[in-house]
Amino acid sequence: MIKVAINGYGTIGKRVADAVAAQKDMKVIGVSKTRPNAEAFVAKQRGYPLYIADLSKKAAFEKVGLSVAGSVEDMCKAADIIVDATPGDVGATNKPLYEKLGKKALWQGGEDHEIAGFSFNSSCNYKDAIGRQFVRVVSCNTTGLCRIIHAIDNEYGVAHVHAIMVRRGSDPGEIKKGPIDAIVLDPVSVPSHHGPDVLSVLPHISIVTMAMIVPTTMMHMHAIRITTKKEVSKERVIDLVKNHPRMGLIKKSAGIRSTAELKEFAMDLGRPRSDLYENCIFEDSIYANKTDLCFFQAIHQEADVVVENIDAIRAMMGGQKDGAASIKTTNDALGFTPIQNNH
Amino acid sequence: MIKVAINGYGTIGKRVADAVAAQKDMKVIGVSKTRPNAEAFVAKQRGYPLYIADLSKKAAFEKVGLSVAGSVEDMCKAADIIVDATPGDVGATNKPLYEKLGKKALWQGGEDHEIAGFSFNSSCNYKDAIGRQFVRVVSCNTTGLCRIIHAIDNEYGVAHVHAIMVRRGSDPGEIKKGPIDAIVLDPVSVPSHHGPDVLSVLPHISIVTMAMIVPTTMMHMHAIRITTKKEVSKERVIDLVKNHPRMGLIKKSAGIRSTAELKEFAMDLGRPRSDLYENCIFEDSIYANKTDLCFFQAIHQEADVVVENIDAIRAMMGGQKDGAASIKTTNDALGFTPIQNNH
Amino acid sequence: MIKVAINGYGTIGKRVADAVAAQKDMKVIGVSKTRPNAEAFVAKQRGYPLYIADLSKKAAFEKVGLSVAGSVEDMCKAADIIVDATPGDVGATNKPLYEKLGKKALWQGGEDHEIAGFSFNSSCNYKDAIGRQFVRVVSCNTTGLCRIIHAIDNEYGVAHVHAIMVRRGSDPGEIKKGPIDAIVLDPVSVPSHHGPDVLSVLPHISIVTMAMIVPTTMMHMHAIRITTKKEVSKERVIDLVKNHPRMGLIKKSAGIRSTAELKEFAMDLGRPRSDLYENCIFEDSIYANKTDLCFFQAIHQEADVVVENIDAIRAMMGGQKDGAASIKTTNDALGFTPIQNNH
Amino acid sequence: MIKVAINGYGTIGKRVADAVAAQKDMKVIGVSKTRPNAEAFVAKQRGYPLYIADLSKKAAFEKVGLSVAGSVEDMCKAADIIVDATPGDVGATNKPLYEKLGKKALWQGGEDHEIAGFSFNSSCNYKDAIGRQFVRVVSCNTTGLCRIIHAIDNEYGVAHVHAIMVRRGSDPGEIKKGPIDAIVLDPVSVPSHHGPDVLSVLPHISIVTMAMIVPTTMMHMHAIRITTKKEVSKERVIDLVKNHPRMGLIKKSAGIRSTAELKEFAMDLGRPRSDLYENCIFEDSIYANKTDLCFFQAIHQEADVVVENIDAIRAMMGGQKDGAASIKTTNDALGFTPIQNNH
Repeated sequence: MIKVAINGYGTIGKRVADAVAAQKDMKVIGVSKTRPNAEAFVAKQRGYPLYIADLSKKAAFEKVGLSVAGSVEDMCKAADIIVDATPGDVGATNKPLYEKLGKKALWQGGEDHEIAGFSFNSSCNYKDAIGRQFVRVVSCNTTGLCRIIHAIDNEYGVAHVHAIMVRRGSDPGEIKKGPIDAIVLDPVSVPSHHGPDVLSVLPHISIVTMAMIVPTTMMHMHAIRITTKKEVSKERVIDLVKNHPRMGLIKKSAGIRSTAELKEFAMDLGRPRSDLYENCIFEDSIYANKTDLCFFQAIHQEADVVVENIDAIRAMMGGQKDGAASIKTTNDALGFTPIQNNH
Repeated sequence: MIKVAINGYGTIGKRVADAVAAQKDMKVIGVSKTRPNAEAFVAKQRGYPLYIADLSKKAAFEKVGLSVAGSVEDMCKAADIIVDATPGDVGATNKPLYEKLGKKALWQGGEDHEIAGFSFNSSCNYKDAIGRQFVRVVSCNTTGLCRIIHAIDNEYGVAHVHAIMVRRGSDPGEIKKGPIDAIVLDPVSVPSHHGPDVLSVLPHISIVTMAMIVPTTMMHMHAIRITTKKEVSKERVIDLVKNHPRMGLIKKSAGIRSTAELKEFAMDLGRPRSDLYENCIFEDSIYANKTDLCFFQAIHQEADVVVENIDAIRAMMGGQKDGAASIKTTNDALGFTPIQNNH
Repeated sequence: MIKVAINGYGTIGKRVADAVAAQKDMKVIGVSKTRPNAEAFVAKQRGYPLYIADLSKKAAFEKVGLSVAGSVEDMCKAADIIVDATPGDVGATNKPLYEKLGKKALWQGGEDHEIAGFSFNSSCNYKDAIGRQFVRVVSCNTTGLCRIIHAIDNEYGVAHVHAIMVRRGSDPGEIKKGPIDAIVLDPVSVPSHHGPDVLSVLPHISIVTMAMIVPTTMMHMHAIRITTKKEVSKERVIDLVKNHPRMGLIKKSAGIRSTAELKEFAMDLGRPRSDLYENCIFEDSIYANKTDLCFFQAIHQEADVVVENIDAIRAMMGGQKDGAASIKTTNDALGFTPIQNNH
Repeated sequence: MIKVAINGYGTIGKRVADAVAAQKDMKVIGVSKTRPNAEAFVAKQRGYPLYIADLSKKAAFEKVGLSVAGSVEDMCKAADIIVDATPGDVGATNKPLYEKLGKKALWQGGEDHEIAGFSFNSSCNYKDAIGRQFVRVVSCNTTGLCRIIHAIDNEYGVAHVHAIMVRRGSDPGEIKKGPIDAIVLDPVSVPSHHGPDVLSVLPHISIVTMAMIVPTTMMHMHAIRITTKKEVSKERVIDLVKNHPRMGLIKKSAGIRSTAELKEFAMDLGRPRSDLYENCIFEDSIYANKTDLCFFQAIHQEADVVVENIDAIRAMMGGQKDGAASIKTTNDALGFTPIQNNH
């Protein structure tokens, strides 16, 4: 039983905690919060021991009925591995603690590659993560790009990727971030950081990315053009998507043409938190003309990395050497089957 | 076992169907769709027999793997009672069918009071619905107003109500409706229709309402001022809310100050579809000064009427004469406890 | 000729600068920027001398073709009066400079009343500002409230005001602020600060305000209920609005029922920056029933205080003792006539 | 003096009317409205004679103080040429009237190419429009694509264009259209209609387009990749943009990285209606690598076609044979210089 601590119980952390709790070979030994709020009450409802960074705030937690199990350091000591899901750039400041305690740790894509020296995607480089002390799970957008690029590369060879990321401005529960009425180039310069970030997992790929932010909370949308080395077939691409454990096909028959309808479908299907762990590729958008492949894929920014974190834990702990087996274990424990099975 | 048909399997219909299915004294004998889309696949997943208005479209459903059990008329014949959850103003056109078949039917608040001659709210007039053939469950906003006004009226007597409804522009899954960047007076004229609609349930109340639409999908927000006949106490109002089976208190300790954070909390708690069946009254907003009571309440437009529909079915079928008992049965079957129990 | 410096050339500052430049008895002797950006180029286009807070950044300005006239202190020395339009709470830190130089200064509503010890509204207390060294022009929402409350109070006597402010989340050019999809109670507690702020101008009024923020950039919307001491007449209220130099009537004939259509109308009419200096009161929303008066008014957050700043300058400099005359001078110089004259 | 009638005085029509009125060789002889609303009062303010489709509504116009000059047919009879700016698909129904009267007419891009048999862009095919009876000015997105593709093609030869259009959901004044919180694929299928529409002007180009709609009102954003036949240089592309009379360069020094900041800049510069007639190409986004050219361009959906309409009128009337001269005349009359001249 792998003892997992979740440092940072927010948008990603709370999902990783539930995904860990669902696995038979892992357990949540604690989660951390900096202040008592709604999410702290959720941790209590789930029965996750609550640790806090600053013990001087213990009284503030207890006053509202939240027990505090100890400090973040106490939590890390009790764990085999720590999932650092603190906000971007905070994670780096926690590394000395993990090193001091000699613990394994994994960070999210908001941190730089250098923090761990290894960037992870279950479908691309599971084997290379086996036994590592430190791993970085790449961001939601990079995860989505790596999955499909790797699959197309295996089948056809990828000559070049041109990807435009139209990104959500904030997560649904974030009320301070905008924009309210604007399309923001983020960054203005081309390429955006996403291309280089893909190279941290798939170093041989030629890729240029462009990124913008729009006033929506639901999902990111990628408009992708891949130039392949061999002639590409729409039917074969559909099969690749259908057979991939972390990609899903949005069939034309569902009548879904937006991120909002897609999230509604996930909600109606009873997915926990309406989460979409898979790349959602729109069947009707797949355009194949000789070596030119274009398509849209929607990426749920809060969810696709969650399952990657679980596989990364398993690889780092070393008990499971086979990435495909870990992916299947993770998916099965979550009752997750890609979305095309439901329509 | 009450045999319930859901005519119109959309935003409200799909929720009522699941709520009916959860009750021990009811079952869903069918739901209707006009075209095959994502929601039709959800009905299939749930195992609800699918009926269609226009049998000439049967092939279109079957082509994508959706079995058709028959026509809407077939469905109604097989039912004891029909929940009409078709879009506003469509419901009225279905009345002749229900009359012809001699079936009980209930409509939503998008229809006029006159369609049924009786407007329903579980907490206010359950008894008056017992045995009726036709009932109209009032709209989400009117439901939210009736619950709190009735409770305050019982305790203090209500001299006058002034309520401003700041309404969501569309439901999360609706992609065609706006506004994108505007506050729309709907209507410009004062009072809005909500005041008179409250009178359809609570005819003796003095009330003026004003309504606008804003670019959000989450929930409505009501800013309410009630002038009472007796001096009002904040603590007593908090108790009234806490003890009401369909009102919930958003405590200050949760740190929630927006509809988005509230929906996130409901999602995290594992509520089905993140639904909030209860008026969500913000503890910290309750202002009581002599006979002046002000507060904010958030109303989940997709959910609060769902539980009212269940009670209305039970009242109309006549087996349960006690409204409070029906409310408890409905809530318990859904595993629903007001939100203050979770924080 | 009053020599005016604008400290902070942003949303408010750039508008005040143009309004000053339009007056015959005033001139802009300089505006200040902290960094070279699009607005700095606008200042250059207008011919306003550009001063900067930190002279070490002079090269960065000059590199892109922007001449720097000197430091902010240089600018203040050259001025008779300084309009401080720096961001909220920054203004307070500038007070020692104005005191040291013995200059007159006025701040915006983002600062506390105490900074100047006097809060200003042209229509309410012009006379009390005559000759003062320091004045605070109240915020856009408070300005809008004071104008109408004062006018109703003069005519009928105001027993009580209940006002709900539905506020825009960000200005159109602000891309970082949200919310994107939420209604945010700001604050959750009742009353909001707007009520007490009205008292800084009209100390004898009984008022309770409630405030929220919604995802729009256009304008604020106020839903107001005023209980009067004498019976109120809709026709007379319409006349009061029509005859007020800073209030406008949105007639039913224009078919306008939203902030977006209102801004579009202002744009089409050729208003500079589509600015609406006046309270925009919707004729069709005016509800008068005995001593109960309700209505909607839209407030353009970027504009309504601009004309108040001009009058405040004139009062403080002491040359014009008559508020009504100053208001007329200000309006005429801007070619401004309330919106009902155009439809 | 060319006598121009504007059939449809809405978003495009009101802008074309003002642009016509600004030209020395043209005059507005009338504009048409279907109902009295705010825009009708704007026409009155401008002094444009108002014609109406349905004369039975004349009293409704006159009741609110709007004089009616006659019917739409009367207006067309009095004109040399009609600019049809009625909503998409309505324009086609007006063609028989123009044919009956033997009048020249031009339509907007919401109509099909076949309506006129000729699709127009000033920079690409002015000469081919000379003397024609019927012309279609292509849509805002197609106009923006044609300008830049044509310029790059002239310089380097275009091998292939891949363009993603991220489109605004509604114009600022439209309050009914969404989405509020979604990214909508419009269409889901690839290519979108924009690629073929470019071919109506530039038939030899190889192009694939993908399009989506997002919740903003400001502008469209294009993310474009052009594969060229000769090696491309960033500096030379910048020069092409700077020297083009209908393209503008958003320099890095302005600090603008969003559509909202861009519209704010246009507003501050005093552009009528904050209109951006030119493609707004972000200098910092221009990426040139051998034969690979990528960049972002923002397109103001309400404005870029307005100047094209003026040139089309001039070409069709036959008095000016030189496209470049017409473009200069149009621009000069509007006082329009591309945006890089202001920063």
